[in-house]
Amino acid sequence: MQSILDEIDATIGASSDRGEVASYIPQLAEVDPRRFGIAVNLADGRCFSAGDAALPFSIQSVSKVFTFTMALERLGDAIWSRVGREPSGDPFNSIVQLEHERGKPRNPFINAGAITIADALISDCRPHPALQQILRFVRRLADDASIDIDAKVAQSEKQSGDRNASLAHFIASFGNLENPAATVLDTYFNHCSIAMSCEQLARAGRFLASDGVITPGEERIVSAQQARRINSLMLMCGHYDGSGEFAYRVGLPGKSGVGGGILAIAPGRASIAVWSPGLDRIGNSKLGTQALELLVKRTGWSIFGH
Amino acid sequence: MQSILDEIDATIGASSDRGEVASYIPQLAEVDPRRFGIAVNLADGRCFSAGDAALPFSIQSVSKVFTFTMALERLGDAIWSRVGREPSGDPFNSIVQLEHERGKPRNPFINAGAITIADALISDCRPHPALQQILRFVRRLADDASIDIDAKVAQSEKQSGDRNASLAHFIASFGNLENPAATVLDTYFNHCSIAMSCEQLARAGRFLASDGVITPGEERIVSAQQARRINSLMLMCGHYDGSGEFAYRVGLPGKSGVGGGILAIAPGRASIAVWSPGLDRIGNSKLGTQALELLVKRTGWSIFGH
Amino acid sequence: MQSILDEIDATIGASSDRGEVASYIPQLAEVDPRRFGIAVNLADGRCFSAGDAALPFSIQSVSKVFTFTMALERLGDAIWSRVGREPSGDPFNSIVQLEHERGKPRNPFINAGAITIADALISDCRPHPALQQILRFVRRLADDASIDIDAKVAQSEKQSGDRNASLAHFIASFGNLENPAATVLDTYFNHCSIAMSCEQLARAGRFLASDGVITPGEERIVSAQQARRINSLMLMCGHYDGSGEFAYRVGLPGKSGVGGGILAIAPGRASIAVWSPGLDRIGNSKLGTQALELLVKRTGWSIFGH
Amino acid sequence: MQSILDEIDATIGASSDRGEVASYIPQLAEVDPRRFGIAVNLADGRCFSAGDAALPFSIQSVSKVFTFTMALERLGDAIWSRVGREPSGDPFNSIVQLEHERGKPRNPFINAGAITIADALISDCRPHPALQQILRFVRRLADDASIDIDAKVAQSEKQSGDRNASLAHFIASFGNLENPAATVLDTYFNHCSIAMSCEQLARAGRFLASDGVITPGEERIVSAQQARRINSLMLMCGHYDGSGEFAYRVGLPGKSGVGGGILAIAPGRASIAVWSPGLDRIGNSKLGTQALELLVKRTGWSIFGH
Repeated sequence: MQSILDEIDATIGASSDRGEVASYIPQLAEVDPRRFGIAVNLADGRCFSAGDAALPFSIQSVSKVFTFTMALERLGDAIWSRVGREPSGDPFNSIVQLEHERGKPRNPFINAGAITIADALISDCRPHPALQQILRFVRRLADDASIDIDAKVAQSEKQSGDRNASLAHFIASFGNLENPAATVLDTYFNHCSIAMSCEQLARAGRFLASDGVITPGEERIVSAQQARRINSLMLMCGHYDGSGEFAYRVGLPGKSGVGGGILAIAPGRASIAVWSPGLDRIGNSKLGTQALELLVKRTGWSIFGH
Repeated sequence: MQSILDEIDATIGASSDRGEVASYIPQLAEVDPRRFGIAVNLADGRCFSAGDAALPFSIQSVSKVFTFTMALERLGDAIWSRVGREPSGDPFNSIVQLEHERGKPRNPFINAGAITIADALISDCRPHPALQQILRFVRRLADDASIDIDAKVAQSEKQSGDRNASLAHFIASFGNLENPAATVLDTYFNHCSIAMSCEQLARAGRFLASDGVITPGEERIVSAQQARRINSLMLMCGHYDGSGEFAYRVGLPGKSGVGGGILAIAPGRASIAVWSPGLDRIGNSKLGTQALELLVKRTGWSIFGH
Repeated sequence: MQSILDEIDATIGASSDRGEVASYIPQLAEVDPRRFGIAVNLADGRCFSAGDAALPFSIQSVSKVFTFTMALERLGDAIWSRVGREPSGDPFNSIVQLEHERGKPRNPFINAGAITIADALISDCRPHPALQQILRFVRRLADDASIDIDAKVAQSEKQSGDRNASLAHFIASFGNLENPAATVLDTYFNHCSIAMSCEQLARAGRFLASDGVITPGEERIVSAQQARRINSLMLMCGHYDGSGEFAYRVGLPGKSGVGGGILAIAPGRASIAVWSPGLDRIGNSKLGTQALELLVKRTGWSIFGH
Repeated sequence: MQSILDEIDATIGASSDRGEVASYIPQLAEVDPRRFGIAVNLADGRCFSAGDAALPFSIQSVSKVFTFTMALERLGDAIWSRVGREPSGDPFNSIVQLEHERGKPRNPFINAGAITIADALISDCRPHPALQQILRFVRRLADDASIDIDAKVAQSEKQSGDRNASLAHFIASFGNLENPAATVLDTYFNHCSIAMSCEQLARAGRFLASDGVITPGEERIVSAQQARRINSLMLMCGHYDGSGEFAYRVGLPGKSGVGGGILAIAPGRASIAVWSPGLDRIGNSKLGTQALELLVKRTGWSIFGH
């Protein structure tokens, strides 16, 4: 495995077309596009990594996997009265569909859906603040108390967050928010600003590769069925309008973030995190996707055949 | 396996809410909603079945798996200039997105996409008629020369096919059809009218469960990578706007038809066909989906964990 | 009035930016973009014209005013169960809205609406063919038996008519056509291919300037209220997604055609026809609109103030 | 004229189907649905009224005519870089089109457009607050210093204003707001909460009936051309997705508000205000529209013929 990761690191390092780094906030725009990290946690507990795998980056929408897991664990199937579980089509559609479906987001991984999930957690986490519980949950999954929110990123997100504010008020206008839009947005912007390294992220994803438990025989996060279902949602909806492309090329459940990170799951085999800041046209990590494609080719981990 | 299938047959037989049989053409409307069949072809060659598994039904959109396979095998990646590979969102969107994306259907499994695939096959099959080659291909996959088109169904489809005619002319208006709309529709309506039993259908899907070969060590239909990719498309787009639901509940690549049939693939393990004519709100077999859910629960075949 | 028209003819003749001539069929593409004609029929019966006002051109969508008038006169308010009377928004929306409103076109002047009107006329004109009755009606309005259909234009329209065929089948799929799509399209393409000169067209519009009668005290075409209502529809919907622009700049009810013609009505004052083949971005005659703007500025005929 | 108004008052008073009073804020929900007022200011200066014409009501969106007039007078054609001038289609489309046209509202009379106009006025009114200048402008038009904002309505609007907040942030996300969304919304909600009687409203509209001057020969508000253009916008866009219906039935430029008021203009003849709190399905005053229809029938004031 280590030689595979080193080889991928070398191949990606030699790539000249690295995509475009997100530019809507300075903290993301200033990240060096040549960064690349990859970390693999096998189901048997062994860990491997290469490149900048120990360097923290802004996990952004990857955090939605963790907030959704919390919501599913706490609220069970009741969460489906608040969000759907179908892919959303292209970004153009997101607000169209939100109107068409009367304020119920298509799935928990588009922004509108994650905002609704944040609202559900706020209501459910009372009297303790949802944000602290989210952070505590991620630290527990990754077994690392040092993980934290990047306050500067959160501040910038808030300042440039008109599109998300629009979505939150739109959802609220249909009666699908229980808390004020401003409160919900604050929680949402903050959990998107969690900083983690590939190594931390791969550890945090272990429970999805091991049927809901962090380490076989040990503490259970969600039921085996719930773990499978989170994986199915990641596959169907984890890369926005590039979800079909990712499933076609990589063949693993995965969730991307605009910071260039991707968490991918090979069920029963491994939890994988990659990071390359340059994005493709749709907003998914360009070389991160390519690295996962190489990894799956070498390991035969595709869920669609071997 | 046989006892599992018998148990499923008994459970489904006892269901009172069987969904609504498709009613837009008399040949479908008149099918007995109490029919149920299931057939499983294991990767090792063994076959099992229960219920009305030997009774032919109209496979309808399941045929799109076969026409797309032909197109991918013949044209390779060039086919992606004609159709996309992303889920399409809800039915409301289908024609919206077709306009938004200038006549390029979202994927080969929505009607617009399958019409485009039919057009590509017509051009590629010259001078021999595409329809005959499609039929020959399906017969070869299922190893059964008796499979045929139900001419009455094809005739009815044509007579009530205004929505599909609209889609074909719409695609043509963007220059994305090479043959006259009427010719393309004729091929499309006919291949949707192929009649097969669950046993025949499960046999026809074997190559997708076995990395592209019908029987291990024998004739190759597509490359292993192509087989995986067809499976990924089935998972992402095989159940229209219920694809997320199917992935969530069943966890296998599958393609449904409005006749009530579903072809599902457990990669490396089995090709499965079910049939129950009653449909859910979206147009997928209600009890067929439930039967597959039961099968996966008993076998642990979900691609998202075990 | 003659001096005003001569002045407009001179101004338009000196324009260098003449827009783009429609190019989807050769018969329109080959028209000389320097052509310009204008004709004014005053309510008192006097006629004036300038430029190429005696030269016939393809009236295209201007014909929709005449077919809608026939339908309103024959079917009365019952026609509103088949089409709406609201502006349609931009072209992007046309098929979206058709789906959203379940096959009922927004108004009789967008293509979908005019196709529905053609269908209504076919049903109402039996046993005599609708097309002959339309032609007879236009000849009567213009008092000119020489007006005819340009058969080559009609033939070309049919050959390049995939978008309209798509609309017709789409409407039919909602049960809003009583005749086969092919029959309806044939009537539609033919009436759009009527050729008229500005002089003929201005004469044909007299009844709309004179409360429903061709000549004061003489034969009534529609009631005064119906004439006002046709005028209101022309203002609201007569220039596709440029209707607001035309109302803002010209301030008269008008209907444009892709052949470069516009019929405009100054209620109580005049029926006006202009022709300049070059179109603006939206598909309305660029210099035709400008000529009307000049005419209204000189005459004070705006319906929104003097 | 007085007898016409009395007759209309009697007819409307006898109506049993009065529509539904707006219910999204208590201040509107509690208005007595039996209220009805009408006031007519003739171009020669004479005033007539009937019913509750002296009773103030919440003018709501009618205020958009006044803010747009201020913006057009101050910024001239530059305002068209911020908003369009085409009808918007149905409410379903409003946010679709806002996305399709990249944050540029279709016209100044839909909510999104009026929010943009409020933003433009804030920037242009500095250092004095826009709200005070709007109020001063309306008082000047109506020649009545007692006109004021209903603070309770404004407060309620703000509390239930998620849809408008969503629109404002959406526009901001495209860079089409110069001031913070919260500031713009505050101005917008307040100017929509101006309370006026029919008599005051009819007086405020005089300049639109008299080519831009309040009283012939006296102070000019806008140029004659600008007055005509405001009238054309009112006709095309003044009743949301019922604008075509209003033009068809009434035949006058008009702007409605959800409080049940309508300001209508008979160019060169009269400024008219009606008020009946019950709304039709689209949100326009049901009996207010009917009252105007009766008035036009009796006076022959339709702009589409006499």
